[in-house]
Amino acid sequence: MGSVKSDHVHNHTSSHNINPLDPEEFRRQGHMIIDFLADYYRDVEKYPVLSQVELGYLRKCLPESTPNNPEPIETILQDVQEHIVPGLPHWQSPNFFAYFPCTGSIAGFLGEMLGTGFNVVGFNWIASPAATELETIVVDWLGEMLELPKSFLFSGNGGGVLQGTTCEAVLCTIVAARDQMLNQIGRENLKKLVVYSSDQTHSAIQKAAQIAGIHPKNFKSIKTSKSTSYALSPDSLRAQICEDVEAGLVPLFLCATVGTTATAAIDPPESLCAVAKDYGMWVHVDAAYAEVPFRHFIDGVEGANSFSLNAHKWFLTSLGCCCLWVKDPSALIKSLSTNPEFLRNKALDSKQVVDYKDWQITLSRKFRSLKLWFVLRSYGVANLRSFMRNHVKMANLFEGLVAMDKRFEIVVPTNFAMVCFRILPSALSEKIYKNGKLDIVSEEHANEANRKLLESINMSGCVFMTHAVVEGVFVIRFAVGATLVEERHVITASKVVQEHANVILST
Amino acid sequence: MGSVKSDHVHNHTSSHNINPLDPEEFRRQGHMIIDFLADYYRDVEKYPVLSQVELGYLRKCLPESTPNNPEPIETILQDVQEHIVPGLPHWQSPNFFAYFPCTGSIAGFLGEMLGTGFNVVGFNWIASPAATELETIVVDWLGEMLELPKSFLFSGNGGGVLQGTTCEAVLCTIVAARDQMLNQIGRENLKKLVVYSSDQTHSAIQKAAQIAGIHPKNFKSIKTSKSTSYALSPDSLRAQICEDVEAGLVPLFLCATVGTTATAAIDPPESLCAVAKDYGMWVHVDAAYAEVPFRHFIDGVEGANSFSLNAHKWFLTSLGCCCLWVKDPSALIKSLSTNPEFLRNKALDSKQVVDYKDWQITLSRKFRSLKLWFVLRSYGVANLRSFMRNHVKMANLFEGLVAMDKRFEIVVPTNFAMVCFRILPSALSEKIYKNGKLDIVSEEHANEANRKLLESINMSGCVFMTHAVVEGVFVIRFAVGATLVEERHVITASKVVQEHANVILST
Repeated sequence: MGSVKSDHVHNHTSSHNINPLDPEEFRRQGHMIIDFLADYYRDVEKYPVLSQVELGYLRKCLPESTPNNPEPIETILQDVQEHIVPGLPHWQSPNFFAYFPCTGSIAGFLGEMLGTGFNVVGFNWIASPAATELETIVVDWLGEMLELPKSFLFSGNGGGVLQGTTCEAVLCTIVAARDQMLNQIGRENLKKLVVYSSDQTHSAIQKAAQIAGIHPKNFKSIKTSKSTSYALSPDSLRAQICEDVEAGLVPLFLCATVGTTATAAIDPPESLCAVAKDYGMWVHVDAAYAEVPFRHFIDGVEGANSFSLNAHKWFLTSLGCCCLWVKDPSALIKSLSTNPEFLRNKALDSKQVVDYKDWQITLSRKFRSLKLWFVLRSYGVANLRSFMRNHVKMANLFEGLVAMDKRFEIVVPTNFAMVCFRILPSALSEKIYKNGKLDIVSEEHANEANRKLLESINMSGCVFMTHAVVEGVFVIRFAVGATLVEERHVITASKVVQEHANVILST
Repeated sequence: MGSVKSDHVHNHTSSHNINPLDPEEFRRQGHMIIDFLADYYRDVEKYPVLSQVELGYLRKCLPESTPNNPEPIETILQDVQEHIVPGLPHWQSPNFFAYFPCTGSIAGFLGEMLGTGFNVVGFNWIASPAATELETIVVDWLGEMLELPKSFLFSGNGGGVLQGTTCEAVLCTIVAARDQMLNQIGRENLKKLVVYSSDQTHSAIQKAAQIAGIHPKNFKSIKTSKSTSYALSPDSLRAQICEDVEAGLVPLFLCATVGTTATAAIDPPESLCAVAKDYGMWVHVDAAYAEVPFRHFIDGVEGANSFSLNAHKWFLTSLGCCCLWVKDPSALIKSLSTNPEFLRNKALDSKQVVDYKDWQITLSRKFRSLKLWFVLRSYGVANLRSFMRNHVKMANLFEGLVAMDKRFEIVVPTNFAMVCFRILPSALSEKIYKNGKLDIVSEEHANEANRKLLESINMSGCVFMTHAVVEGVFVIRFAVGATLVEERHVITASKVVQEHANVILST
């Protein structure tokens, strides 16, 4: 802290002429960073896809405090290359098959840059007419492209908003549903409200319910099983609701997922909405994979109240672009507006003004629509669809290659572009038999072997996959979706899996 | 929708070879966008700072649906110039004195670009060690630079996190405080919890309380007055708390603001924390202007539980960088983690692992620390401080120029870099006298005249300011802070004000 304190008087007069936004310096440094990133993409395949650094590595490389004097961009970029890049799992690498993809693209990047460059805070129309209006237009474009019911579009008296993540989108809808219900039954009944999802639903939903003040005991995670491929069964939902109503609770909210995190399971919107309707519940459909090639999976979505899709997953916009559509924007606005008097003006009543600050958690908001607009225009509907179909094809290719090897099992039918597989317990039995002992391998041993396999694969740095545990079974998830992925990467990945399995099964 | 549907079969085969992240194409288009933005900054002064477009202008300029086929970047950029730029208030213009500044800089921009380019989803350490570790380092750097008590830093067993906005930061802290309290007094008492702020506090706090399920009646906005320059008085706070405790309510949370939105008023942290301490309340200090040149305004902050600062306001990082520091990270984690079992591991207990998803609303998170790191290193402590001091000097210059004209009143003493002024009612009396009628001008008439003055100034496109209403008085806010602002812009702005006042007062 010494340098921070001691020099500031001295430097006061000498340094007040900096222009942190000098156009020509911006141009010079901007070009440098573009070249840095272009080289990064060119070389990304060569980096170990999972970072090999150890916990706490970075503090050892960096100084203890903010420098008192400016450092040149060249030095900073060198540090990025030396200290930051080795600490990254390379999410944009074609060998990245972990989690869900988070796709970047040139168009998405350019849109993000422009938005950052303009740096407008578009909380309402007047603070940025272009940001507000472009957003209303592109959410309609995308909604139409996904063949959403017109009732979710502005052109059909619904509407959409671009948020950062599903967590925010779901929190907004839970809060809207909560307040709508409490207005009917009285605020003192908050403790009775119940939120439903399946045990495969992303923890974001539970977290959102928790933040919204739903009693932790009233977050009901309904058991799924292999018999429904881990989809939420309408019968199980109804049974749980009946039990809760019996106990004096009030069913509030259901989140149905099209493409769950663990296994890309598909909760059936149509039949789940039918159950929810009987109890006047709000239904949110969270779709990672709602793209038109798979439109039938969201059949029945017209019965839902809200629908969200992370454009940063498969839609090339880079992180921070979750599209939320609602049928009844006023439900959101009633909960999330802090100045309803002000909003009750002629323009709003005529539905001409959208003040997006009242559609989300935060008041400040970035100019997100630019990047989605750039993506939709730069690639066009046809290319975007074929891009996704290609990923599905590659997932099927991988599935085929793994399934040919009889030591492996495809644990659930492959949906979209994710393959869930594992070494079969029987393959381990064979091994144990070979070693002179004949034993029935327990699921626990199989889990342990698959955990070791995954760790060994990931530590190689060649590919990166993650896992899930479903009904106690450890499965390896192979999620195709990186922008740069090609068939050859998928083929190599299947070989890597087999090679590491050879080692695991021979020791 | 016709084109969307009809062509996709046709284009299926012809279009599957796109590479949306081709390095050389990235380079080409990236350089184009840098030049576009460099030219924008060069010319930004020439644009009308407040957009002149009419409501609904954009839908008329754009096609109805997503194009089926790709469009070249040249066409898209031309549309940005023709249709988007005219719909922007130019937040980066040196003539922008509205709201609070949202400062961009070359370094902030470069950091944001790199983060977008790497496109990692750093929800926990393993998903991005570099993103997690750099964040823990730069929040300590910044905290130390602000001379925060060590108890708020990782190096003092507290810690910081970079969120998008103050709304998110405050929501996290309210939820943490709520759950901590309910664990003591039972969840059924949620309806008794009270959140306090002043009537000058940003509506984000009320919104956060609302989202967290605090009963709307239990959000207490305490009246302030000119006698304390609209700062929250500890006595008023105590009186309100006593009344609430008497009524069986439970004081939970206080937000003290250092630099309120309307008039940059300063709630005194030290004496407010003393009151809060008597009732075991959580105190959050929301500081727009906590920079060291004004360090004394946050004296007593060691009594608070949490502290936040929007680095995008005055710290050049561009939108989406709110630093939140807490003394007790475990309070946040207990509320915001959805897998506490998983987290209870050896590494966490030894405080080595920070899983930032448990410090914020969302699970996914951008690599925000890069841009703050770039800013701190590119400019250094000395430059950053003199940058802020210069803005204060310019605000004082403007204040002096306006105050010399006896028709104007500086409504509250100028804090930091914001001047609140208005045409005096007496100046309007003189006018009315001149017209042959002698009348005492009511505050209402004065408000109307000032409203007209502001509208006339803003419609000119030369400068953009906004307003506030305090104790029924309409005041014009002049917030210095745009990165590109120089003395000459401030002098011109004062002339624009006087010229428009001449017109208003002569008609």
